[in-house]
Amino acid sequence: MSRLVMKFGGTSVADLERIRRVARLVAAEVATGKQVAVVVSAMSGKTNELVAWTDGAGRAAAGLPESDDEYDAVVASGEQVTAGLLAMTLRNMGHKARSFLGWQVPILTDEAHGRARIEEIPPENLEECFANGEIAVIAGFQGVTPKRRITTLGRGGSDTSAVAIAAAVKGACDIYTDVDGVYTTDPRIESKAKRLAKISYEEMLEMASLGAKVLQTRSVEMAMAHRVPVRVLSSFVEPGEAPGQGTIVCDEEEIMEKRIVSGVAYSRDEAKITLLGLPDHPGVSSQIFGRLADANVNVDMIVQSRARSAATANMEFTVGKRDAARAVEIVQAAKTEIGFEDVAVNEDVAKVSVIGVGMRSHAGVAQSMFAALAEKNINIQVISTSEIKISVLIDAAYTELAVRALHAVYGLDQL
Amino acid sequence: MSRLVMKFGGTSVADLERIRRVARLVAAEVATGKQVAVVVSAMSGKTNELVAWTDGAGRAAAGLPESDDEYDAVVASGEQVTAGLLAMTLRNMGHKARSFLGWQVPILTDEAHGRARIEEIPPENLEECFANGEIAVIAGFQGVTPKRRITTLGRGGSDTSAVAIAAAVKGACDIYTDVDGVYTTDPRIESKAKRLAKISYEEMLEMASLGAKVLQTRSVEMAMAHRVPVRVLSSFVEPGEAPGQGTIVCDEEEIMEKRIVSGVAYSRDEAKITLLGLPDHPGVSSQIFGRLADANVNVDMIVQSRARSAATANMEFTVGKRDAARAVEIVQAAKTEIGFEDVAVNEDVAKVSVIGVGMRSHAGVAQSMFAALAEKNINIQVISTSEIKISVLIDAAYTELAVRALHAVYGLDQL
Repeated sequence: MSRLVMKFGGTSVADLERIRRVARLVAAEVATGKQVAVVVSAMSGKTNELVAWTDGAGRAAAGLPESDDEYDAVVASGEQVTAGLLAMTLRNMGHKARSFLGWQVPILTDEAHGRARIEEIPPENLEECFANGEIAVIAGFQGVTPKRRITTLGRGGSDTSAVAIAAAVKGACDIYTDVDGVYTTDPRIESKAKRLAKISYEEMLEMASLGAKVLQTRSVEMAMAHRVPVRVLSSFVEPGEAPGQGTIVCDEEEIMEKRIVSGVAYSRDEAKITLLGLPDHPGVSSQIFGRLADANVNVDMIVQSRARSAATANMEFTVGKRDAARAVEIVQAAKTEIGFEDVAVNEDVAKVSVIGVGMRSHAGVAQSMFAALAEKNINIQVISTSEIKISVLIDAAYTELAVRALHAVYGLDQL
Repeated sequence: MSRLVMKFGGTSVADLERIRRVARLVAAEVATGKQVAVVVSAMSGKTNELVAWTDGAGRAAAGLPESDDEYDAVVASGEQVTAGLLAMTLRNMGHKARSFLGWQVPILTDEAHGRARIEEIPPENLEECFANGEIAVIAGFQGVTPKRRITTLGRGGSDTSAVAIAAAVKGACDIYTDVDGVYTTDPRIESKAKRLAKISYEEMLEMASLGAKVLQTRSVEMAMAHRVPVRVLSSFVEPGEAPGQGTIVCDEEEIMEKRIVSGVAYSRDEAKITLLGLPDHPGVSSQIFGRLADANVNVDMIVQSRARSAATANMEFTVGKRDAARAVEIVQAAKTEIGFEDVAVNEDVAKVSVIGVGMRSHAGVAQSMFAALAEKNINIQVISTSEIKISVLIDAAYTELAVRALHAVYGLDQL
């Protein structure tokens, strides 16, 4: 019997009426003979309320970790409520259903509270549930440590819960969200954006990490590692109302019609830090980035350039906006050891990226990108590339213009 | 090292400011060298919100049990939030603290969801917590079944959690509430009501079951069975602000100065049902009350009287107001078998009771009561007595008058 894990986010379970629609979507899948597990988030807004309380209880006070075991105990209660309410609603529709919290599945994680990683999901309890003909309704976003303390998986963690459970029970995974699939770019910026029928794991992973919010990055990593077939689709339709909707995330080999570029992503969450007048000798980079790594500051794009004076260099790199102030403090504190002249921060930047597995076999993709941006008079500040993506850092004011230009130049308008 | 379980209800943890005051009260006890466990309710209003959602999810629909395992999973989340927030607040004040949910203690209960009874509390985890110098912050009102499903203990269940935990760890139990102790009667009705310094378990049990809302009846039963010393006191004071406040609930032997009557309680939650023209032969009562018992309708006071016709009798009894309509249905359905002529319901009744262990050794207590009520022209409809209490059912309009008259006649005004 085929198995399906269905995941519904906070906006899909925001109130009792939406929970009833979710129940109808679940019932429609059960009616096709599948064994179904459902993973739910907290009602939208609830997690923010809970986090605000933990802030008020002194979490944000100096010297305290951003999240700990008590933070997790508080915040995990949001998913508990929706899991119980959905199980109840399904029962009232005549189905057999029961809720599972993280410790009841169990979803075993490490002890990194607030951003725990799933280590194992023993499938026995879910297997028993399926064998009894029950629908398993599972609280997403949470797990339990070997010491029986509650953990949470970080924002968006319910996606990861769903994919991990699908891997554990050897099922497919449908991620229901407030959009009806993965688009070539953000439709709010480019009205010609097209929904992709299929996208490869690798492309989805780049899209997610480069700013597309449709799936949590870790959930895609996990889907790729365990080859879980994932479908992204809208929860705002009634069962049967939109056949064939959604986007399938799958192996590259399953995608018949290959595109060179599949999507254009952007992110405004970056800040650019510039170190001016660095001594131009080996070891300087490792001094800087070693310190940042020790402080858990993630550095993304890096470029080094010759300064006016021949003996010195400038270094530019990007960090997440919320880490920018801390990153500056860290390099300032080491100013004499590193030996730079000045440091500057620019938060008015955006990272725009084109993603596509077709790049591997097609030359000239970068050249088209640079030409298209040049034609619109958009200056490129930093560039970084991987096998299947090219990212550029530009002035944030040009974000929409750049996204539209790139969407056009790679033929995505005509898909 | 002496041990103390401190319990705080919903109004005591209603917001972050109050949670901080609770933390200060806890810290003051820790400073005296005690090992402390704290039991908390949900923030006031939260449980009602959660219950309303379960109603909306169809719980109230026809044919469904009033509460089940999913109801409990939803509703138990309220205490989880306050337990986490209080543990966090204590840590931020420099204490070692950790939260425990019902399944983490564990508090083992039967499977009667929504009104589960505690069966056992293995003390090992709490002992370990104490041995580590940690304050245990425990979510009240909840437990876990042998099948690892969450249960709740019924309204007011956090009192029972606290007393049961105190019994398990062999400690005393302080119940913090929004009043500063147990009064001779409701101070809102009789301004001369006095706080009792001590009250016996037996008296407290009668007071609780006869309408005084200060402690849950089951928590008193449990305290009595396990000889847990309980103190009722106010959470709306700062540490040290009101030394010697509160009421100690203890063994009768520990109360030096015995009173004949310790308190006057009242309840407006009763309805009186009258069956007119019953055949006056054996077996009729058992027919009526057997049927009501089968339907789980609790009957409290009962009186049978001769009717106008010598061959028939009238029967009056009281049930909880919320059960009145159902009770009438049940007897109506059996009208021909039972053979009564008519049935009437009166919801405008109140039960007023005087309670005191001194009654055992003093005659004339009932006579004083009846005389005092007669003097105020209050008609007694039904009477019931136990070893240490006398209750009368009267017209609800006379409730306050009766309470004040009785408070005076037993000398409670002069305590």
